[in-house]
Amino acid sequence: MELVPLTRLLQGKRVVLASSSPRRRDILSSMGLQFEVVPSHFQESLEKARFPAPPEYARETAKLKALEVASRLRRDLHPPDVIIGADTIVAVDGVILEKPKDKDDAYRMLRRLSGQQHSVITGVAILRPLWRRQLQEPRDPEAEVELSLFHEETRVTFSRLSEPLLCEYVESGEPLDKAGAYGLQARGGALAERVEGDFFNAVGFPLNRCIRELAAIFPDVGPQVPVSQRPATPQ
Amino acid sequence: MELVPLTRLLQGKRVVLASSSPRRRDILSSMGLQFEVVPSHFQESLEKARFPAPPEYARETAKLKALEVASRLRRDLHPPDVIIGADTIVAVDGVILEKPKDKDDAYRMLRRLSGQQHSVITGVAILRPLWRRQLQEPRDPEAEVELSLFHEETRVTFSRLSEPLLCEYVESGEPLDKAGAYGLQARGGALAERVEGDFFNAVGFPLNRCIRELAAIFPDVGPQVPVSQRPATPQ
Repeated sequence: MELVPLTRLLQGKRVVLASSSPRRRDILSSMGLQFEVVPSHFQESLEKARFPAPPEYARETAKLKALEVASRLRRDLHPPDVIIGADTIVAVDGVILEKPKDKDDAYRMLRRLSGQQHSVITGVAILRPLWRRQLQEPRDPEAEVELSLFHEETRVTFSRLSEPLLCEYVESGEPLDKAGAYGLQARGGALAERVEGDFFNAVGFPLNRCIRELAAIFPDVGPQVPVSQRPATPQ
Repeated sequence: MELVPLTRLLQGKRVVLASSSPRRRDILSSMGLQFEVVPSHFQESLEKARFPAPPEYARETAKLKALEVASRLRRDLHPPDVIIGADTIVAVDGVILEKPKDKDDAYRMLRRLSGQQHSVITGVAILRPLWRRQLQEPRDPEAEVELSLFHEETRVTFSRLSEPLLCEYVESGEPLDKAGAYGLQARGGALAERVEGDFFNAVGFPLNRCIRELAAIFPDVGPQVPVSQRPATPQ
């Protein structure tokens, strides 16, 4: 399948990003996409032990973030056509690291990652509400949507980090709002010797994979379809 | 060897980046490093056929860029302590792609990369002038410097790119000032399914590797050395 422009796949659709992450917003904005940001109220509070592996946790969290936003927007005059939820975690030796609670927590996380390979995993949920067809009160929120759920994993290998580097980086404040306590696209990019996987996934949003998933969801917006034959955009 | 902060390695030194690339400048600035930008006048005009492989071409170009800047700054009252030159190329099937000449050239390059794996190679030259010891006119510019020359290679795999995507991306203007006609950190990040290697190298500057090379050049600025015992900074 050939990659088509994200703007073309989502043209004329009301797109909601159910995330407050500035990185995700920047990545989607840089593609020229028109979308709204509606941060989810869903707390990242699932019991990690009940998931067989870290990717399942990230996927479930992404899904619940998107569903929470969907439940709030379902009564809009023009409800969204697509809602995108995402959750990024860092996993090392099967242990999940989310955002650090404070600087001490950030320091501990970075010590754990020092000299090791770990995974950056983003779970993504793409919801297409079916509200136009059934408008009664939802019993099972999932029955009201078409759901594409996937995850992308990027392997990252850190250098061994010296004490001065750890302290300087934690003091910079950058780790505090980032899963695993680092941001690869900023100062944290110095820490990694090697990445393997989707480039933007390492920063919190697997853009390339997302475009491919959206192309599977909207197959009639392929590269061969002339503009004049495209389906009318929903209103 | 443990990674130490870049700012600590280069503290008190006059550092010159012999490159006008805004990406390289941003990466180094984001580390909190104080440095000057002195773009090299050296043209990227070496005969590619005389190099056994693409990395050698990138290394030689980086070296000549840095030496050209060094030759201009050697009479400064306080000459630089470190001059960093870099050259980034894209190589596919042994063929070197630099910056495209125009939009047609960009289109051709991107067509060539579509659905393929290629290499982003950055050659880096770190020069330490020895001018304080020998001030006579240089015969061999290389005899006047200590030179660390290396390259870093990141493998990038592109999706198959549709015609609309190619056209939209070329028309955005983003490809025009970038080796291989794309920028992974911006819209071009959508094109790649996978990267393998140094994260920032794929954007034009192998920061992590550079810090490790600088630590080898300045081994007395290691993590164990207390501040009070550090060598005096040159004036």
